[in-house]
Amino acid sequence: MIEPKVLKGFKDSLPGEEFYKKYLITKIEGTLKLFGYLPIDTPALEYKEILLGKGGGETDKQVFIFKDKGEREVGLRYDLTVPLARFVAMHENEIVFPFKRYHISKVWRGEKPQRGRFREFYQADFDIIGIDSIESDIEIILLIYNLLKNLGITNITIKINDRSLLHQIFEKIGISEFEKEILLILDKYYKITEVEFIENLKSIIGNKSEEILRIIKYANEGNLFEFIKERYNIYDTRLEKIFSFFKQINLKEFVTIDFAITRGLDYYTGIVFETFIKDSIELGSVCSGGRYDNLTSIFSKNKYSGIGSSIGLDRLITYLIEKNLIPKISFCNLLIVNLNSKDLNLYYEILNKMHNEDISCEIYPEATKLKKQFKYAEEKNIPFMLFLGEEEKEKSILKLKNIITGVELIFSKIDKLIDYLKNPQKSISLWSISEYFLSFSTIWIPIS
Amino acid sequence: MIEPKVLKGFKDSLPGEEFYKKYLITKIEGTLKLFGYLPIDTPALEYKEILLGKGGGETDKQVFIFKDKGEREVGLRYDLTVPLARFVAMHENEIVFPFKRYHISKVWRGEKPQRGRFREFYQADFDIIGIDSIESDIEIILLIYNLLKNLGITNITIKINDRSLLHQIFEKIGISEFEKEILLILDKYYKITEVEFIENLKSIIGNKSEEILRIIKYANEGNLFEFIKERYNIYDTRLEKIFSFFKQINLKEFVTIDFAITRGLDYYTGIVFETFIKDSIELGSVCSGGRYDNLTSIFSKNKYSGIGSSIGLDRLITYLIEKNLIPKISFCNLLIVNLNSKDLNLYYEILNKMHNEDISCEIYPEATKLKKQFKYAEEKNIPFMLFLGEEEKEKSILKLKNIITGVELIFSKIDKLIDYLKNPQKSISLWSISEYFLSFSTIWIPIS
Repeated sequence: MIEPKVLKGFKDSLPGEEFYKKYLITKIEGTLKLFGYLPIDTPALEYKEILLGKGGGETDKQVFIFKDKGEREVGLRYDLTVPLARFVAMHENEIVFPFKRYHISKVWRGEKPQRGRFREFYQADFDIIGIDSIESDIEIILLIYNLLKNLGITNITIKINDRSLLHQIFEKIGISEFEKEILLILDKYYKITEVEFIENLKSIIGNKSEEILRIIKYANEGNLFEFIKERYNIYDTRLEKIFSFFKQINLKEFVTIDFAITRGLDYYTGIVFETFIKDSIELGSVCSGGRYDNLTSIFSKNKYSGIGSSIGLDRLITYLIEKNLIPKISFCNLLIVNLNSKDLNLYYEILNKMHNEDISCEIYPEATKLKKQFKYAEEKNIPFMLFLGEEEKEKSILKLKNIITGVELIFSKIDKLIDYLKNPQKSISLWSISEYFLSFSTIWIPIS
Repeated sequence: MIEPKVLKGFKDSLPGEEFYKKYLITKIEGTLKLFGYLPIDTPALEYKEILLGKGGGETDKQVFIFKDKGEREVGLRYDLTVPLARFVAMHENEIVFPFKRYHISKVWRGEKPQRGRFREFYQADFDIIGIDSIESDIEIILLIYNLLKNLGITNITIKINDRSLLHQIFEKIGISEFEKEILLILDKYYKITEVEFIENLKSIIGNKSEEILRIIKYANEGNLFEFIKERYNIYDTRLEKIFSFFKQINLKEFVTIDFAITRGLDYYTGIVFETFIKDSIELGSVCSGGRYDNLTSIFSKNKYSGIGSSIGLDRLITYLIEKNLIPKISFCNLLIVNLNSKDLNLYYEILNKMHNEDISCEIYPEATKLKKQFKYAEEKNIPFMLFLGEEEKEKSILKLKNIITGVELIFSKIDKLIDYLKNPQKSISLWSISEYFLSFSTIWIPIS
């Protein structure tokens, strides 16, 4: 006998979790489709050299690399960006540019497993590739707003910044040679104290640190653009245009300029952004990304600028469950009680009618004890059970039992039953009558 | 520069293919949900010993096995049945039995790549676990019928057999010691000539071969059950009951008893079945499976009988495309032409209204040449373009262009445009007018 277990850092997805995941992915796909994004997929396995490129970084150690049967070094993709770059370079003649694609799929990382972090998880990315325009920057930010709105989340702040504007400012201040180091320190702004922040900066750029702090604060106070016009002679920034667009369309409250958002060491060269849910800042960003100027640099001589974003599915599921934002849909609405195998054709006739009306319905697959069938409905969260026993057949009626309230209803026609199951809330007056009788445990209410 | 390429036997899925795949999977999931099946998922990577079990067979050579960073031998799942067995044994206390689950996910096999065969592909399995009843056998077969019907495929034959009945017959004939060999020969019945078939059988069971041939033929002629009652005293077979049930509910024409269906060396112990589309028999079975009496034998001391089936997604996609059974839905219905970046807020106002009405709509992300925007719509198969130029703004009208017919329509109100886009077919009379003017290339038809 072999002990049934999964690898460290991996886990099964049971029906409940899988249901939530499918709900979230379906919702996200729905919004992306409305905006004209196209789905793609790539292999889980890629050549090692494709995955690691020039390599040598921290990522390399986390990639699942192994030798295949042909002694080729291959690995499991650790993100969806590298495969996208390879994909665009390989299919540049088959793609319609600007290429708006999305990709929701699993990636694997051999990181040390931590609480809530797994070695196998979903990523959900969307990008506009092959165009560098303010419209595409705006679209991505607007899309994030819509993605979350369609999930029922509107208390959000999308924090945006522009790395190329930072670059210009650093040049004016005369500290552009330290850009990388400064970006990393900026990225830590919200994680350390202001004193630590200034100290970190001072060790790199000395007295000019105060100026950086001033920019961050001006950005937060909203008069940043006046300041950089006056002080650095930088006019007509893309960031300002984007911000005023969101003002114009009355979505200003959802967008904030924040110079401390830099996305660390990532390959971004323009707009960068992170998205926070106001009542759950501690979750971290639920949607981040930015503009890059050369997606396919290691795979093609053609340059592709683009802007893209990644949705934190796990963080969103956590939030949606916590806030009760996922509709409590039962997996199945109706269980036809199996009272006698001989009546199977009658049961199937009803099942068929239910399915034709898009009502999820199943027949208990054995004429066994009622208790067992009741337990099944209860554990599977099926709200209604239908009884077609001798008495019901004789009287040509259908007996429906609500397993939560215990109330029983009698229907003389299948159409009435279907109407009822499609919208049990409508029958609210019925429910109030029923509740009156609830103490009698079960009561028959004839509906003709 | 690194050459962008994928591993041998692997491939990217471009938007068109991905769209078809998602269409098929969504349809299948819809039917499974109606029948009360629950989704699960398992890790792509499993311990080698879990995947290979007692091992030693042909499968072993095909499994992608490697060492992880902890020097553990792990592998990519090569089917969804082994992970299911491990899953059921591991979560037996969290599962509601009878457990009706489905799992649609990728598997990997290091087979020699052949035309149309890949090393990474989807499997789609559904099972009822933890019950051995005639109702569950019937449900699986009925579900196959419904899955295909909901895909628009009704010209099918589900061929069923029962291995336990074969076993009984072999015992009566006195050849049960050769059961395995006979099952393998039966499995080849439709691939070899009758002479070869008899010769193969003769080399194992001598003169008794004729009797096997006779059973196969009786089965095909439909008086099998009379024959086995008379000759072997075998009454009340489950196969007969299943067959008469399908007669009763008038689905007889879709179900055939066929003693040559044995599913080769698979682990089945009861009902087995394969499904063929009548006008594409050469595709092979599009949905096969059967009943097993002990799913978790290597992982648990508890026995779980069950019945399951696997859908051939690739075969179905091939068929659906060939027969034009996938609706030709455009990825996006409306492109708002970007004539002037200054009008972006106006464009977004319209975009928003379209999205609220579930109409897929995008704005070209740059105020560039019309030719380029037109080409984009054409290549992306977007049927309509909306123009909001100076003239249209001044007159407060909306100009819609059908890029297939070239016809232009004028709308005075956004609501009218929405009504039209939601159901362009309804405006059939309009189209006939338009066609009359088609020779004039473009014509404005005012719709107030």
